[in-house]
Amino acid sequence: MHGYPRAVPALRIALAQVNPTVGDLVGNAELIRQAVRTAVDGGAQLVVLPEMVLTGYPVEDLALRPSFQQASREAMTALAADLAADGAGEVTCLIGYLDHLADAADGPDDVGVPRGRPVNAAAVVRDGRVIARYVKHHLPNYGVFDEQRYFVPGGEPLLIDVAGRRVCVAVCEDLWQAGGPVQWAREGAADVLAVLNASPYERDKDDVRLALCQRRAQEAGATLVYCNLVGGQDELVFDGDSLVVAPDGTLLARAPQFASDVLLVDIGADHDADVGTPHTRLEPLAEVYGALVLGLRDYVSKNGFRSVILGLSGGIDSAVVAAISVDALGADRVHGVALPSAYSSEHSIADAHDLAARTGIHLRTVPIAPMVDAFMGSLELSGLAEENLQARVRGTTLMALSNAEGHLVLATGNKSELSVGYSTIYGDAVGGFAPIKDVPKTLVWELARWRNGAAAGEGSTPPIPESSIAKPPSAELRPGQMDTDSLPDYVELDRMLEQYVAGDHSADDLVASGFDRDLVERILRLTDLAEYKRRQYPPGTKISLRAFGRDRRLPITNRWRESSGRPDS
Amino acid sequence: MHGYPRAVPALRIALAQVNPTVGDLVGNAELIRQAVRTAVDGGAQLVVLPEMVLTGYPVEDLALRPSFQQASREAMTALAADLAADGAGEVTCLIGYLDHLADAADGPDDVGVPRGRPVNAAAVVRDGRVIARYVKHHLPNYGVFDEQRYFVPGGEPLLIDVAGRRVCVAVCEDLWQAGGPVQWAREGAADVLAVLNASPYERDKDDVRLALCQRRAQEAGATLVYCNLVGGQDELVFDGDSLVVAPDGTLLARAPQFASDVLLVDIGADHDADVGTPHTRLEPLAEVYGALVLGLRDYVSKNGFRSVILGLSGGIDSAVVAAISVDALGADRVHGVALPSAYSSEHSIADAHDLAARTGIHLRTVPIAPMVDAFMGSLELSGLAEENLQARVRGTTLMALSNAEGHLVLATGNKSELSVGYSTIYGDAVGGFAPIKDVPKTLVWELARWRNGAAAGEGSTPPIPESSIAKPPSAELRPGQMDTDSLPDYVELDRMLEQYVAGDHSADDLVASGFDRDLVERILRLTDLAEYKRRQYPPGTKISLRAFGRDRRLPITNRWRESSGRPDS
Repeated sequence: MHGYPRAVPALRIALAQVNPTVGDLVGNAELIRQAVRTAVDGGAQLVVLPEMVLTGYPVEDLALRPSFQQASREAMTALAADLAADGAGEVTCLIGYLDHLADAADGPDDVGVPRGRPVNAAAVVRDGRVIARYVKHHLPNYGVFDEQRYFVPGGEPLLIDVAGRRVCVAVCEDLWQAGGPVQWAREGAADVLAVLNASPYERDKDDVRLALCQRRAQEAGATLVYCNLVGGQDELVFDGDSLVVAPDGTLLARAPQFASDVLLVDIGADHDADVGTPHTRLEPLAEVYGALVLGLRDYVSKNGFRSVILGLSGGIDSAVVAAISVDALGADRVHGVALPSAYSSEHSIADAHDLAARTGIHLRTVPIAPMVDAFMGSLELSGLAEENLQARVRGTTLMALSNAEGHLVLATGNKSELSVGYSTIYGDAVGGFAPIKDVPKTLVWELARWRNGAAAGEGSTPPIPESSIAKPPSAELRPGQMDTDSLPDYVELDRMLEQYVAGDHSADDLVASGFDRDLVERILRLTDLAEYKRRQYPPGTKISLRAFGRDRRLPITNRWRESSGRPDS
Repeated sequence: MHGYPRAVPALRIALAQVNPTVGDLVGNAELIRQAVRTAVDGGAQLVVLPEMVLTGYPVEDLALRPSFQQASREAMTALAADLAADGAGEVTCLIGYLDHLADAADGPDDVGVPRGRPVNAAAVVRDGRVIARYVKHHLPNYGVFDEQRYFVPGGEPLLIDVAGRRVCVAVCEDLWQAGGPVQWAREGAADVLAVLNASPYERDKDDVRLALCQRRAQEAGATLVYCNLVGGQDELVFDGDSLVVAPDGTLLARAPQFASDVLLVDIGADHDADVGTPHTRLEPLAEVYGALVLGLRDYVSKNGFRSVILGLSGGIDSAVVAAISVDALGADRVHGVALPSAYSSEHSIADAHDLAARTGIHLRTVPIAPMVDAFMGSLELSGLAEENLQARVRGTTLMALSNAEGHLVLATGNKSELSVGYSTIYGDAVGGFAPIKDVPKTLVWELARWRNGAAAGEGSTPPIPESSIAKPPSAELRPGQMDTDSLPDYVELDRMLEQYVAGDHSADDLVASGFDRDLVERILRLTDLAEYKRRQYPPGTKISLRAFGRDRRLPITNRWRESSGRPDS
C-alpha cells in the first residue's frame, strides 16, 4: 500500500537533525559534513537535512544582505565539493540554505520566479555539486515568522529520482498550507515527500505536527520524511523530533527531542521500519524543561559566554532558573549572588544557601544596604521609588560582577510578572537572557516539582529547596510584602492571562467565562500599560503559542482598553 | 487638460491631516468631526482624511483582535451618524479605519475577498452612513511595515460620484506599487484619485513622495489628492505634508509639515488652485528638528506624561535633547540633572548650568560619588566595570527621581553610539524614550548649530552653549577620556555606518570606497556585537531610511561577520 513496487530494494533515508548557528557558514558546513558521514556510515542513500541549515534559522534581515546571500551560495557550492571529497558523492543530500536570484534585468530565473531577491531554498547535492534547487513555495508571515519580508516564493515542483524512487521536495510551511508541494507530490506520483523544516518548539505542538504529517502523507500518497532543526536561536528553540510517516499515516520512526541525531529508516522493503533507536515523545513537563535547558545552553554557548550569574532571592523563580542553568551548563559555570536587604527574611537567605548546597553552584553574598543607604542619603525616596531602588541596586551589582568577571546575567522573571508589569525595569529585569520569561508562575511551580521528582526518581539530590516551592511568593521589597497583596491568586491570574495574551479574548469574553469584571479590567489594564517594560526586557525562550516578543507586536502608545475604550454603542 | 469638462462647477476638496492616537476611537472620532466641521465651514464638498485615522496607525497586533475590529467598525457607524448630526451629511468624507470581514463560512464578502480577516479600509461616508467601503489593495511588508501579517488585500476598485466628478479611492501603498488603483482610476476615467495615507517621515522622503504623486497623477490622468497623517506614534512620526497634484503633474497645493491642518483646494474651475495658505517644504535641518520635536511631544502627551527628566553632562547630546524637549513641551516641563563624578570636568558642570540658564529648564545637581563609593566598597571593580558603574548609578538616580516625581526619563544617546555599542546598558541607556537615537553624531552637531542659528535669527537666546558644540566629545568615565581614543573621527564613522547600516554594504564594498580595512572590520564587528544592547534600548523617533528597531531586524545570536565569516572561496 505504500505506493511503490516491492521489486525495488529498500531505500535507506537518513534524517539529520543538527544544531547550526545563525551566520556560521563554516561551522555549519562542518556540522553537515559530520552528519552526512554518520549517515553514509549507516548506509543511507538519501540524507535529508533541515531548512536553512547551512545559514541557521531565522537569519532575519541578514537575508536581505547581498554579501550574505552570495556567501551562502558559495558555501553551498564548496560544501557539495567537500561532501564528494568525504566519499559521500554518491549519496543524495537535501540541504536547506539561503540563495538569491540574479538581477531582474537578466530575465526570469531558472526556477520561474522574479530575479534579484533572496529565496529560502533546498539544494539537491550529489556527485560534488548542486544538481537541482527547490524554492520554498508557501512563506509564513504570522506569529514569529516574517518570511514575506524576506523571500520570493517559488512556484515550481521539484521531483528527483533517488535509487529508483521518486522524491518530491518541500520546505516547512509548504506542509502546513494546502496546495503546492503536497499536491505536486501526488500529481507526480512521488514515493517520498521530503520536508526540510525549521519549526520552533511550542507546548503541545508535537501532537499537531504529527497529526499534520499523517494527514499530508495520506494526501500526498507518499512516505513523508520530516526533518526538523535542533537548537536555540535567541527566543526560539527548535526541538528536532523528526518524523517518518507512511503513506497510510502510520508513524514509522521518530528522532529525539532537543538533541542532535541522525535517524535512519528503510522504506519500501518488506516493511518500512526505523532501523535506529526508536524515540517516544517526552512527557509534557519534561518537554518544557528540555526546551528551557536547550534554549539557555545555546544562547550562552553560541554567544561565546562561559558562565552565567543570577541573583538568588530564595524564591521559586530564581531557584528554577538556577536549576535550568545547572542542567544546561554544569554547576561550575553558574554563579549565584544573594543580595539581601533590610526586608529580606532569614528564610530567604537560608533558602538561597540551601539551593547552592543542593546544586553545587557558586554563591556569594552582597548586602545591598550600603548602596541603598548612599542613594537614600542623596535623594528623598519612599514607597515605590524606594522599592524599585532596591531592585536597581541589585541589578547594578549583578551587571558590575558581569563586567568584572565575564558572566552572562540572567533575568529570573516569569511570564505572569512580565504580563502585569510586576517587575522593576533596570532592576530585576536586567540580563542578557531571561530563561523563564515565557513560563507562567503556576508552570514555574509545576516545573520545580517535576524537576525535584525526576531527581528523586534517579536517586540524586532534588535541586530546588522545598521551602522555595512551598512558601507564598513575595518580592520582599517592603516589610511583609506578598504578591497576593496586589495580584490575584496565580492560578486565576494565569488562566486570565492565557485567555487575554494568547487568545486575544476581550474583557467581555473573560467576564462571560466567569472572572470578576473589576479584576478583569484591572489585570488587562496592567498588562496593556506594561508594554514599555516588555519592550526593554531581555530575550528568553519561547515555549507558548504566543510569547512576548516578535510573536505579539503591540504599540506602546495605545489608548485602546478592552473594557473602557469601546464607543457607547 | 484636467480630464473633466469645464461646464461642471469647481469641486472644493478638503485634505484634513489630523493627529490621532492609536486605539483612542472616541478621541479620534472627535478629531475627525472637528476637522470635517472646519472643512464644511470652508465650503468643502469632499473631505479626504488619512489612512486608518479612526484607529490611529500602525495598530500592529491590535488589528488581529476581534473586539478591536468590531469596535472600530461600530465607531465608524457612529461617526457617520454624528457627522450628519453635525450638519455634514451632504458632504462626502473618505475616512480610513480598521474593518473586518465576517466569517469565511458565510461565503465571500461584498468586496470579494475572503471573510474572517481584518482589512485596512476607507469608508465613504455620506448622509449619515457608510455608503461604500474600499479595501487597500497593495499591502507593504518591508521596512517598518508588516501589513501582510495583518490585512487581507482588497481586489476591487472603488469609484464614486461626488458633485458630478468621478473619484477613485486608494490607500497609501496602492500609490507606491504599479497596478491596482492607479490603473483603475485611468480605466474608470476618474477625475480625482483620492489617496488616504499614513506615510512615516524619513529624511528626503518628501521629494520622493512628490515625484511619485506627480508621476501617478499623470498615469491616472486624474487630479491626485494625497492626504497624510500627522503625529508621533512610538518610533514613527507622520509628517503631514499633504499634496494636491494636477493630472499634468503640476503641484497645486501643499499642507504644512508636522502640524494638523485642513487644506482646501478647488479643482475643475477656471484653474485649479489652493484656496488656503500655501506651504513650502521646510529646509532639511528644520525638517529633521521638526520631526524630533513632534515625535517627543506626542510620545509624552499620548502616554500621559506631563514632564521629562534627563541627565545633563554638559555634552552636545544631552544639550540637544534638552533643546528639543523645551521646544516640544516648554521649559517648565523639562527637568535636568547634573550628575558629576570625580572625572567630570569643571567646564562640563558649567556647561550644564549654562544650558539651564539659556533654556529656563529646571536643574538640580546630584553628585554620584557617595553611591559609586558604596558600590566600590562592596565590590572590587576596575576598568570597564568601574566606568559602567558610574553610568548605572546615574541611570538609577534618574529612574528614582522619575518614580518619585512622575517624569518620563529621556535617554540621550545618538545613533553613532548606538551603532557601535558605545553606551552603557542600564546606564546612560535608561529611559522611556530616546529622542535622538536615530540621529548620527555629526547630524547632532548640525542640528545644534541650526537651532542656535534659528534662535539668533529671531532674536532669542540660542539654547545650546557654544562650548558644548565646540569641545571634543568625551564620556568622562575616566580621567582625560576622549571618544576618539576608541573611535575614529565621527565624520568618518558616520559615513561608514550609513553605508553599513542603511545600505547593507559589505566590508569589501567599504574598503573599495576608501576606508581602511582594519578600521572597517573593527567598526562592523562592534556594530554587530552591540545588537543585544539595541534590543533593550528605548524607542526613539525614526528620521532615517533605516532606523534601529523594526526597520532593521537582526538576530542577537549571529556569527556572520562581513569581514571574516565568508568561506575561503
